[in-house]
Amino acid sequence: MSGYVHLFIPGPTNIPEEVRQAMNLSMEDMRSARFPELTLPLFADLKKVFKNETGRVFIYPSSGTGAWEAAMTNVLSPGDNVLMSRFGQFSHLWVDMAERLGFKVDCLDMEWGTGVPVELYAEKLAADKAHRIKAVFVTQNETATGVTSDVAAVRRALDAAGHPALLFVDGVSSIGSIDFRQDEWGVDCAVSGSQKGFMLPAGLGFLSVSQKALEASKTGRHIRCYFSFEDMIKTNDIGYFPYTPPTQLLRGLRASLELIFEEGLENIFARHHHLANGVRAAVTAWGLKLCATEPKWHSDTVSAIRLPEGIDGVEVIQHAYRAYNTSLGSGLSKVAGKVFRIGHLGSLNEGMVLGALGAAELTLLDCGVKIEAGSGVGAAINQFRAAATATTARAA
Amino acid sequence: MSGYVHLFIPGPTNIPEEVRQAMNLSMEDMRSARFPELTLPLFADLKKVFKNETGRVFIYPSSGTGAWEAAMTNVLSPGDNVLMSRFGQFSHLWVDMAERLGFKVDCLDMEWGTGVPVELYAEKLAADKAHRIKAVFVTQNETATGVTSDVAAVRRALDAAGHPALLFVDGVSSIGSIDFRQDEWGVDCAVSGSQKGFMLPAGLGFLSVSQKALEASKTGRHIRCYFSFEDMIKTNDIGYFPYTPPTQLLRGLRASLELIFEEGLENIFARHHHLANGVRAAVTAWGLKLCATEPKWHSDTVSAIRLPEGIDGVEVIQHAYRAYNTSLGSGLSKVAGKVFRIGHLGSLNEGMVLGALGAAELTLLDCGVKIEAGSGVGAAINQFRAAATATTARAA
Amino acid sequence: MSGYVHLFIPGPTNIPEEVRQAMNLSMEDMRSARFPELTLPLFADLKKVFKNETGRVFIYPSSGTGAWEAAMTNVLSPGDNVLMSRFGQFSHLWVDMAERLGFKVDCLDMEWGTGVPVELYAEKLAADKAHRIKAVFVTQNETATGVTSDVAAVRRALDAAGHPALLFVDGVSSIGSIDFRQDEWGVDCAVSGSQKGFMLPAGLGFLSVSQKALEASKTGRHIRCYFSFEDMIKTNDIGYFPYTPPTQLLRGLRASLELIFEEGLENIFARHHHLANGVRAAVTAWGLKLCATEPKWHSDTVSAIRLPEGIDGVEVIQHAYRAYNTSLGSGLSKVAGKVFRIGHLGSLNEGMVLGALGAAELTLLDCGVKIEAGSGVGAAINQFRAAATATTARAA
Amino acid sequence: MSGYVHLFIPGPTNIPEEVRQAMNLSMEDMRSARFPELTLPLFADLKKVFKNETGRVFIYPSSGTGAWEAAMTNVLSPGDNVLMSRFGQFSHLWVDMAERLGFKVDCLDMEWGTGVPVELYAEKLAADKAHRIKAVFVTQNETATGVTSDVAAVRRALDAAGHPALLFVDGVSSIGSIDFRQDEWGVDCAVSGSQKGFMLPAGLGFLSVSQKALEASKTGRHIRCYFSFEDMIKTNDIGYFPYTPPTQLLRGLRASLELIFEEGLENIFARHHHLANGVRAAVTAWGLKLCATEPKWHSDTVSAIRLPEGIDGVEVIQHAYRAYNTSLGSGLSKVAGKVFRIGHLGSLNEGMVLGALGAAELTLLDCGVKIEAGSGVGAAINQFRAAATATTARAA
Repeated sequence: MSGYVHLFIPGPTNIPEEVRQAMNLSMEDMRSARFPELTLPLFADLKKVFKNETGRVFIYPSSGTGAWEAAMTNVLSPGDNVLMSRFGQFSHLWVDMAERLGFKVDCLDMEWGTGVPVELYAEKLAADKAHRIKAVFVTQNETATGVTSDVAAVRRALDAAGHPALLFVDGVSSIGSIDFRQDEWGVDCAVSGSQKGFMLPAGLGFLSVSQKALEASKTGRHIRCYFSFEDMIKTNDIGYFPYTPPTQLLRGLRASLELIFEEGLENIFARHHHLANGVRAAVTAWGLKLCATEPKWHSDTVSAIRLPEGIDGVEVIQHAYRAYNTSLGSGLSKVAGKVFRIGHLGSLNEGMVLGALGAAELTLLDCGVKIEAGSGVGAAINQFRAAATATTARAA
Repeated sequence: MSGYVHLFIPGPTNIPEEVRQAMNLSMEDMRSARFPELTLPLFADLKKVFKNETGRVFIYPSSGTGAWEAAMTNVLSPGDNVLMSRFGQFSHLWVDMAERLGFKVDCLDMEWGTGVPVELYAEKLAADKAHRIKAVFVTQNETATGVTSDVAAVRRALDAAGHPALLFVDGVSSIGSIDFRQDEWGVDCAVSGSQKGFMLPAGLGFLSVSQKALEASKTGRHIRCYFSFEDMIKTNDIGYFPYTPPTQLLRGLRASLELIFEEGLENIFARHHHLANGVRAAVTAWGLKLCATEPKWHSDTVSAIRLPEGIDGVEVIQHAYRAYNTSLGSGLSKVAGKVFRIGHLGSLNEGMVLGALGAAELTLLDCGVKIEAGSGVGAAINQFRAAATATTARAA
Repeated sequence: MSGYVHLFIPGPTNIPEEVRQAMNLSMEDMRSARFPELTLPLFADLKKVFKNETGRVFIYPSSGTGAWEAAMTNVLSPGDNVLMSRFGQFSHLWVDMAERLGFKVDCLDMEWGTGVPVELYAEKLAADKAHRIKAVFVTQNETATGVTSDVAAVRRALDAAGHPALLFVDGVSSIGSIDFRQDEWGVDCAVSGSQKGFMLPAGLGFLSVSQKALEASKTGRHIRCYFSFEDMIKTNDIGYFPYTPPTQLLRGLRASLELIFEEGLENIFARHHHLANGVRAAVTAWGLKLCATEPKWHSDTVSAIRLPEGIDGVEVIQHAYRAYNTSLGSGLSKVAGKVFRIGHLGSLNEGMVLGALGAAELTLLDCGVKIEAGSGVGAAINQFRAAATATTARAA
Repeated sequence: MSGYVHLFIPGPTNIPEEVRQAMNLSMEDMRSARFPELTLPLFADLKKVFKNETGRVFIYPSSGTGAWEAAMTNVLSPGDNVLMSRFGQFSHLWVDMAERLGFKVDCLDMEWGTGVPVELYAEKLAADKAHRIKAVFVTQNETATGVTSDVAAVRRALDAAGHPALLFVDGVSSIGSIDFRQDEWGVDCAVSGSQKGFMLPAGLGFLSVSQKALEASKTGRHIRCYFSFEDMIKTNDIGYFPYTPPTQLLRGLRASLELIFEEGLENIFARHHHLANGVRAAVTAWGLKLCATEPKWHSDTVSAIRLPEGIDGVEVIQHAYRAYNTSLGSGLSKVAGKVFRIGHLGSLNEGMVLGALGAAELTLLDCGVKIEAGSGVGAAINQFRAAATATTARAA
């Protein structure tokens, strides 16, 4: 099919030219004397994105799922009590992994479209006088429903209860795009992956850990080899890896970090909020509803949009793909067929969002959704312009 | 700036992945025994795009301007009488070159926004009983104003007058995107370039010639070295070039021709018409006017859109570029500052057009043009859907 | 430093242009309807390289080490008895992983420079009347010492003893380069990685398994999540992955498999043997010795070359890298500083080998090794020519 | 065929990774407001390579041949007397172009293997009291025979005669690799191309001119359009081009210039001399002779090597290409079949040269040339090591 593929799934995201160029290179020796000149700054700079000044970061040749496993198998032990909540496909998979890894999971099942129930967490923590709960889990951004949870509030709940539990955060689809502050929020394990806010292909799992997590890992009783902190630390400390790392991706990560620092994390967060507001304005104009039940849950990286009764979400996704070369995100699990998702994260600007909204309108109309052609794009344009005016006014 | 650059100028056009991949290669020996395995099929297949079965095609390491010069210096001689018309910046430049090359140019100056005046040509040809006119020139697509002229009608005028003049066509921004039939229309020299419908970077000038033009070149009295047919023919015939050709572009051309043949020329023309109709619907919805004064002049590869009084076109272009990472075409020469252009040719689909229109709306509003946000995108969507319905109906 | 880096480590290997081009692409949707058109043939074709017609193959986003872990944690259970042998850094690491994973490892420590002790294996198997040994491990190619072991002979030993143990093979630096026949040799788990004979960057671990291994995995009592067969099978069967796969590498694998099938596996094995013979001829001409103690252990993918007393191998590697842009393999662990290695696998031809040998000679001389300049290259040339003559004679 | 192609022709040369990466990008708008941020520094920096501080440089979308034509048609006029010499295929082609362009060429035919006859030039200039000679031509490096001429000496001859003739230099295969000093040597037109010392694909012709040449161009009576200085100057001065330039090549040129300045021109010249000495040592060891008849003519960018009687050079080239994936330069015109050439310029290091020599030895032996295998490589190694020792001694 002629023309570019329009990629508006919530990851993998579009790769900037600079990153693509940096990865277009011949193979290199991952044991060369100069290799640490690449890797040591990478570790240091990656920590800046997590705002982790005191701990360390691991880069696994894996998906983000691998980094989840690394966090849990190194820092916790079979039989540990953990507090989790489930409100979408990715929080579900995390719970599933925790159960398979032998933790005693206290899982709070919440309505899909809401997020981490901070009040319930607070109650549980306050009630746990014996400090049996070893870790509390937060899915910062539930990619399946477009819901962002309040990590800082969970930290406040822990502190209010004087509870020593470790804090685990799944930031795969948020870190680098939505505000995250590891040190300030006292996060012990923060997981991310290369293919979302980091604007790289999939293939690297990132795990940023606190000193407390590192300490805990020394007595962790899970078997771990591939994901072992210890093996990593021994080699990472001198700039190498315990096995052959994907050097092209590491070169790409270097380029990606340069772009991130050049734009500035706070500017990136603001840009994501700005563009997400445009998408949300379009959804409202279409007369449709987000899966996220309240504004406080709105995600700035992905919007899951409920389809009217009688419209098959699978057909919507397929039609966009086959007729218009456009990849939208499908509904997963409980919301399969009922929602479609627009990913709006990573390397992105207004023109791309308007193109995505235009292609979505075309698709929705073809599939029988009653919307007015141009209404969503128009609303997004007005939203973008109003925001720009407000910014200019503030600056004046 | 984050996100992709939106390139909607009328060339260079967006490069398909397949072409970009094909050009990402190390250098090769342009004198190797296997090099003709690349070049000989290239010459043969390039002729298919021009629908030239009887003549031959030249590939110059140059821009399209170089191919213009090749056509004129090989086939004509200083002092020759030529019939031309001028109605935009590119037809103007062609006239200018003809004058500098020493031809006696009978130039018909037409309103910008119209095209080749076939009736006037017919009169001139009929009146030229002595057959003094050696060549008639047609700018098939005037890129500056978005005007397409009727090449076949000029051929009919020549035939009606029984006039033996050679027919020169500038097809830089049309061939490969808009219907063109060299043999059927009796075109003697057809010029194009790599960076428009051929979806390649700039760097190759194409010149497709008839046997009549080849014959004429044998007695041409212009000095020509770099652009000499003779030098080219001698080496091309065995698969080589008289000087080092840009091999990456030739590899890219191979990939581009594969894409063209896979989609099919007629389908490509239909797609361009379909997408152009969407753009034109948007212009109407905005309440703006095309530079092309009548539907018969409408170009399917580029639309030049008149801006309201008081709006500075230069500012529009600059604002789109600086604020929204979007390259639109500027007004040139006589219409500088008065129009902006949207290129809609090459590797393109609905989503790209809607993104371009969305970015254009945002820009126009910012620059003070009174349009309704979303109106153009909505009109394009409705146009696309109506056309699809019509097609389905016809097929049923 | 000017000029190409000369990469002659035993992996990652040099990437062919076709593979590099195929990986130079924008991101794609790993949940798209067309994605299985890529993945399903990949699984089928990858099996052909392992000569596995009856089982299945897994592609993990990991290094080869990850595929080791996948094999052991799915197919075996903690406490299982396994028979292993250790004679180099990579067989050592495998033993280490087996011990960490809780197996009862009967490890035969052999001289570095030799390989799997088939006779000792045969004795152990014959003596194990109770069939306590659940699995037998073979490092087909020990990358650290340049030693190839006889997998078929281990199969014969198992059969002779009528022993039902599973057969595990580490083929990371052999499969795709040295003869390997999974079905014929009754191999249950064969591990490889993308960055050696498959001529790709690191990032994919391959695990090819028999039906017997799949059956055994159903009762395996190890916890496994990221590397779980079950999760993989469920999604792979319909062309997807349980988590985001590195799509660029999969596109590269498609190109790499095309190259492999085009050349033909048997031709590839013959080429590796031919080129390795050249390297070995050079070593002899230099008056140096291979680490491999006997011709039967000679590896066709990597040669580990012993340095004379008093020469520091680390200095040799560093000097080649810093002065001549050449990456040679260093000695690891027990042979650190005592050997240097030349990788001769993957995308390779005579000219590359001669360049490697020339750079090695320059380096060795600079480091004080007494060799005659040109002697190794000359011996390799003579070897190559003699082999070509013999081939021609045989063909006549 | 497996493995890299070994490209040892005297251009196009091997492209450094940095340059290849820089050219791997999507299309851009050559009329954008930011485009001059690329082009203006390019013009300025390109002048540094020519050591032209006082004049200006033109970048043509063409081969080097196009830049020849640009120089001659802008600066001279039909009927002008010019002094040239011919001693190889490229000096021949230059003479041929001059004759076709209507100059009165006084051509000194010299033995192939020698260079510009400075003494004869001096005599001619001294004798030309009337200053009829408008321009003197020097092929600084005759690529066909591997002969470098003395540009500075020609300048001295002009000065000695007090002759005002313009000095034209063909530096296509020398500038950027061999010492060249436009201002100091009073060169008026210096021609080069992208595909040699500039380490880029073919596609750009460079022409660096003095103020005197610019002045002369104002009264030049040749017709010129595509190559017109005037059109170029008008647009170049504000950072644009009179027609669409090949932007990928311009981005590559930026990267290439960075590499050149990083290494330093004097270091680049020294490296070329060093590597060329290695090749020449090999030729001597083989018992063969260079085409260049005396050391003073030895080129540091290409060696043309005479083959023994009875050996067909065409077969040598073809065999290297077909059997060993190695591109060597063929003999051209008068020396066709009698010589083969090794290009040793651009992005190059010792390992690459040794690989080229090794492949050449293999080829020569296969083709029946009686040389000792390894002798040339050994001699080059000894030459490289002796030079390094001498450098170290000097530094001490």
